[in-house]
Amino acid sequence: MEDHTQVEEEFQLARRASRAETSFIREILKLTARNDIISFAGGMPNPKLFPVDAIREATDKVLREDGANVLQYTITEGYMPLKEFISQRYKEKKGLEISPDKILIINGSMQAIDLIGKLLLNPGDNVILENPTFIGALQSFNILEANFVGVNLEEDGLDISHLEAQVASHKSNLSYLIPNFHNPTGITYSEEKRQNIAEIFKSNRIMVIEDDPYGEINFSGALNPSFAEYYPEGTFLMGSFSKIISPGMRLGWVTSPNRKLMEKLVVMKQAADTHASNLSQRIIHQFLCDTDLNQHIDNIKKVYKAQLDAMVEAIEENFPKQVKTSIPEGGMFIWGILPERYSASALFDLSIKEKVAFVPALSFYAHQDVDNTFRLNYSNADEDDIKTGIEKLGRCLKEYLI
Amino acid sequence: MEDHTQVEEEFQLARRASRAETSFIREILKLTARNDIISFAGGMPNPKLFPVDAIREATDKVLREDGANVLQYTITEGYMPLKEFISQRYKEKKGLEISPDKILIINGSMQAIDLIGKLLLNPGDNVILENPTFIGALQSFNILEANFVGVNLEEDGLDISHLEAQVASHKSNLSYLIPNFHNPTGITYSEEKRQNIAEIFKSNRIMVIEDDPYGEINFSGALNPSFAEYYPEGTFLMGSFSKIISPGMRLGWVTSPNRKLMEKLVVMKQAADTHASNLSQRIIHQFLCDTDLNQHIDNIKKVYKAQLDAMVEAIEENFPKQVKTSIPEGGMFIWGILPERYSASALFDLSIKEKVAFVPALSFYAHQDVDNTFRLNYSNADEDDIKTGIEKLGRCLKEYLI
Repeated sequence: MEDHTQVEEEFQLARRASRAETSFIREILKLTARNDIISFAGGMPNPKLFPVDAIREATDKVLREDGANVLQYTITEGYMPLKEFISQRYKEKKGLEISPDKILIINGSMQAIDLIGKLLLNPGDNVILENPTFIGALQSFNILEANFVGVNLEEDGLDISHLEAQVASHKSNLSYLIPNFHNPTGITYSEEKRQNIAEIFKSNRIMVIEDDPYGEINFSGALNPSFAEYYPEGTFLMGSFSKIISPGMRLGWVTSPNRKLMEKLVVMKQAADTHASNLSQRIIHQFLCDTDLNQHIDNIKKVYKAQLDAMVEAIEENFPKQVKTSIPEGGMFIWGILPERYSASALFDLSIKEKVAFVPALSFYAHQDVDNTFRLNYSNADEDDIKTGIEKLGRCLKEYLI
Repeated sequence: MEDHTQVEEEFQLARRASRAETSFIREILKLTARNDIISFAGGMPNPKLFPVDAIREATDKVLREDGANVLQYTITEGYMPLKEFISQRYKEKKGLEISPDKILIINGSMQAIDLIGKLLLNPGDNVILENPTFIGALQSFNILEANFVGVNLEEDGLDISHLEAQVASHKSNLSYLIPNFHNPTGITYSEEKRQNIAEIFKSNRIMVIEDDPYGEINFSGALNPSFAEYYPEGTFLMGSFSKIISPGMRLGWVTSPNRKLMEKLVVMKQAADTHASNLSQRIIHQFLCDTDLNQHIDNIKKVYKAQLDAMVEAIEENFPKQVKTSIPEGGMFIWGILPERYSASALFDLSIKEKVAFVPALSFYAHQDVDNTFRLNYSNADEDDIKTGIEKLGRCLKEYLI
């Protein structure tokens, strides 16, 4: 028989296929999976905090009590009691009235980017994005052949005058923002800017995808307000169990009060992959019934805050003063800025030799035109590794920034 | 606070959004979920055959032994030991050499339709489809703005002269086929037709998506050959755990020997939702390690064959002779054809009053222009319900076909 294990022939591909390129950051993450490397590169939660036993017990329970239904096909919209939990939590934590029937359960909140993109974007349409932003969003919108309109970020959110200029010069119907503990910069939008931005979007009929995977990991006080408060009809609010329970189970949600849009989004989801894992939905719902989620999240915050503090202390001791870093109020990332003439990609080449990894942020920019910034993840490294890794990175910085 | 639970405002949607309509069959399935209805409408496996205890034990084991990894993010490509199992099984059962690194794990094989469609189809491109075909494929391709080119089905596969005529008159680079125990018709392609069709596609540079969710549920002898045997470079072969283990876990795969295409498909998957559930992958892999899959599938086949026989017997006793039915060699569906001037949709209106449901096949046709055919599912009803339901349906038929 002919060897079919590898065949290279050219077939006619779609226009968008040329935009499906393996990313540099992906290669970094493969590299940093090696055990001998101290990695601040990934964006992963600390696996020590996964509630493994509680998930095991929840699984045992749902399979024993309702196995035949748990393993069967289910409706595309998602498991209603899980959606009721999400709705109730929005009410308690953020004062938001979100009806369970306006929530769609998906494979991690990221899937909403693809589904909403399909719903709103024709090829060539402009999408307003933070510059820099989440690389997965760039990847999704890119495959949908969107055109990126980047808006500069300040410490309290989008640069309003830049936003106004970009909105005026680029007709658009969609924006994508991460207002809480932003990835990659760690910044959080002020309430004033949220209101201000909502008004600008509202008056220009621009919908906003509010991605909020980190919102619950806030180190101080109450949860931040959502665009769903100021501009409900134009907001797709996303949420995720990835950072508070488990990312490997791939479960998140998206909601909008607009019934017609949610109905179409359900069809988009159905056409994509029928429904999110019924087993995952039932396990997480059971876990939520049997666990004090607030206490579980408090524990995550305590650990991450200690790791953040360790990293900040090590940075103060070891980084040259020319390197600016910003300290987040929650989430998983510290942001670093080198003096303008330096390259974080070049710094990476030095630090990887010392077996320390981070992410040069070039790939996070819509037009990949800024190379002096970088992202440090503190959630997935213990305090000893943080101390050792930042010391080494400090030495690389001193060597590089002559 | 303003009531945000329902808001209707018009925003600018993408062109493809007009194609995201709730389907009639979806409404039928909601209706038939009622307990007082005998339903032959769905396409669901029999939940009595789900290996609930074995799945429970497999879950317990992977969470106890490797919980922190099982609940963490993983690579987009999928869990290598699971892919090795799939590769090995193709070799044993079909003599196919498929390298594990050419397999991508996805959320049920259906997700491959969206991913491959994104890879190959520009808006307006022609897709060659069986007429009728799987409604989920019509839905996916429709949202990708494909143009449907239907080819008539005969009892042993596509009508070759119709295929040749359609290929000659509609330039196309993609086809979608279900050669084994086809949904909705239950037919199976002959080996001769498979070869013949592969040659036609090959000489016209048309790639083929071979959807094979039912292939393992064959009531007689060895598994059927794949297009991957005759036309490897042009075949995307899909497979699924939905019909042999559990559909609720949403796990399937797609493979092609073409490295470049698989790499791009991995990027499409990553941009859609990062990766398939790590937990589901690990559970199913553990289940496959600890269970005799052949014996498990033999048990499914035994039960389904008995249900099929019960339905065929009841049909022979109760249906008027003008109604033609075709008896499948495997899978889950019997196909029914009314005399041309009658409507299966009208028959449905009669039978639902008698609390018996089936699917009028109108929605399965690319151009929804044939209404005298229908699909009966026998996998998800016990023999008593089959007897009672077919008797009632027989009475409706006699009343309708005056």
